[in-house]
Amino acid sequence: MSITPGLLPVGLRDRLPPQAEAASRLLHRVIVAIGRHGYDRVAPPLAEFEEGLVGRLKSARAQDLLRFVDPVSQRTLALRPDITAQIGRIAATRMRHRARPLRLAYGGPVLKLRATQLRPERELIQTGAELIGSDTVAAAIELLGVAIEALETAGVTGITVDLTLPDLVETLAAGPLPLAPERIDAVRATLDAKDAGGLAALDAEAYLPFIAAAGPLDDAMTRLRRVPGADALSSRLDGIAAIAAAFRDRVTLTLDPTERHGFEYQSWLGFSLFGAGLSGEVGRGGSYTIVHADGGEEAAIGFSLYIDPLVDAGLGQEPRRRLFLPTGTDPAAAASLRGQGWTTIAALADGDDAAALGCTHRLVGGEPQPL
Amino acid sequence: MSITPGLLPVGLRDRLPPQAEAASRLLHRVIVAIGRHGYDRVAPPLAEFEEGLVGRLKSARAQDLLRFVDPVSQRTLALRPDITAQIGRIAATRMRHRARPLRLAYGGPVLKLRATQLRPERELIQTGAELIGSDTVAAAIELLGVAIEALETAGVTGITVDLTLPDLVETLAAGPLPLAPERIDAVRATLDAKDAGGLAALDAEAYLPFIAAAGPLDDAMTRLRRVPGADALSSRLDGIAAIAAAFRDRVTLTLDPTERHGFEYQSWLGFSLFGAGLSGEVGRGGSYTIVHADGGEEAAIGFSLYIDPLVDAGLGQEPRRRLFLPTGTDPAAAASLRGQGWTTIAALADGDDAAALGCTHRLVGGEPQPL
Repeated sequence: MSITPGLLPVGLRDRLPPQAEAASRLLHRVIVAIGRHGYDRVAPPLAEFEEGLVGRLKSARAQDLLRFVDPVSQRTLALRPDITAQIGRIAATRMRHRARPLRLAYGGPVLKLRATQLRPERELIQTGAELIGSDTVAAAIELLGVAIEALETAGVTGITVDLTLPDLVETLAAGPLPLAPERIDAVRATLDAKDAGGLAALDAEAYLPFIAAAGPLDDAMTRLRRVPGADALSSRLDGIAAIAAAFRDRVTLTLDPTERHGFEYQSWLGFSLFGAGLSGEVGRGGSYTIVHADGGEEAAIGFSLYIDPLVDAGLGQEPRRRLFLPTGTDPAAAASLRGQGWTTIAALADGDDAAALGCTHRLVGGEPQPL
Repeated sequence: MSITPGLLPVGLRDRLPPQAEAASRLLHRVIVAIGRHGYDRVAPPLAEFEEGLVGRLKSARAQDLLRFVDPVSQRTLALRPDITAQIGRIAATRMRHRARPLRLAYGGPVLKLRATQLRPERELIQTGAELIGSDTVAAAIELLGVAIEALETAGVTGITVDLTLPDLVETLAAGPLPLAPERIDAVRATLDAKDAGGLAALDAEAYLPFIAAAGPLDDAMTRLRRVPGADALSSRLDGIAAIAAAFRDRVTLTLDPTERHGFEYQSWLGFSLFGAGLSGEVGRGGSYTIVHADGGEEAAIGFSLYIDPLVDAGLGQEPRRRLFLPTGTDPAAAASLRGQGWTTIAALADGDDAAALGCTHRLVGGEPQPL
């Protein structure tokens, strides 16, 4: 098979200037902002033993991973499609004995087996934070505040946080709206599809009002608290109210009580993050449980976001101040100009063309002059 | 086969605090420093078609790569063991028509099939710069200056630059010290091994004085210029002398005319970079030729370095100023303290332990107090 020179596999791409620099800048800014809240950076490897990665991934099966046989270990490794599972592994093993709450941050590339319609890239830069050892309302408020600040730092405006209650069906089924265990998954799937007719067919119409309660947070909360059976959710709803009070002046808040797409492994709280002018969600997170090797469990809450859609929306780019230095410019003077924030492009030969090289200024008589 | 929880494949590892942050900080600092000289960042993907990657890699064979069959494209992909070949691809394809000299920078993870004794890691963070379209002495001085500044920015002190002449044998064999074409490789290998007896066996004793000329730059140059046949190297030696004049006040310079290990694909100039207290070389580079799909050739010069040995030597770490915020701290006050450079660790519950959480200070009456 012949190869077109420079052709890349589907879903993999080169980032060129200025997007490549924007991606690097955004990742750096976000991870520094997260770090200021005490989230220490960890950096797990790009590949792990397939069994270890699959065992900890929340929704991936081995056949959903990019796998290869490692000639050195003679074992099957998989490229990570997600970093959060690795953070859970680190928290449960090498950092098992560190004081809780343990705050960890990460940022780096992940590789997906398949692109999606929403995300045509298979290689993405994922970043985020995990707070391990607590999933209280206070933990949720801290974590969501860090997530919002991360987006603001990246230049995202008009942020909307869509809150959800991932374990709503279990909670209600175990209390006021009983469901036979074998029907729980079917009711969940029907709620996920917002399929009223399906609920009737399952004889679970009592769950219908929870779909209808979705919407802007205050309205949704009012409607939700009136639904028969919602008393069983009161501690969750009080938590949501406290979160809303913390962020109502900063972001738009919505509530979709029955939304579970992608939140299958979250416990009491899930959230999706949206921004003005950005298509689809730009980040997500929620509370979850880490299971240790000895069977012990630990509450946690985290969020992650992808840098790539932010770059594609034009965020992270800065105006270029590129200064052409004629041949013979004193190296110390050039260093001083770089220290003042100039990017310098030194002529290597007399024919070098300042404009063609993307310069905005030229050094004339020791002073930068606009081209 | 049973797996110890958390065990990682040989050569792959987790970076924990504070090393993970140091790695991120060093990469960022280095790439920003390189960028100030007009090197625009590009970010090629982690994996490419095996054929494309092998075709451009300077010394890797397909069996030296971590490869996998991509279920989507049904083709064999390889994880990049090196980024410079990808930069060459970008320069020759998507950026073929950009003005020269084209200055590109990069930084990101690479995956090696095998660890070496010097580098036990198989995943490394590589960064560097390529200057495409020129390999003149002026280009070499710029590029080497950027490389030295990159190391200085990372905190490396006591820098030594070891210069070498990779095409020495071809140049001499085509001129004053003729060798039959079939003996050239053998003479090179013998010079690489600094094997005087081997040279005699090859009837190539005339090359022996070039081994002996290695050493501190000024001495080496003096000895080298006296070797019979060295006239053929005079443009190269004049270039070396100009490079030495540019950097002799800043770094230690040595010359090893016959060293070719790892410089097999370099043209007139190669260099290795060393630092005080760092084992082995910390970076390397040199001049080379990019071959285009239409057969055209383009001169280039570049350098690369790995961040990992710098992190392992303790570089990039900064003193921690971690401030414990008692429950009830005003969020705006906390944000203001972060703006002043504090890392804040907010208590989520009354039992949270400032010392156990690694805090150096505690907020008391609105003022940070040392713990």
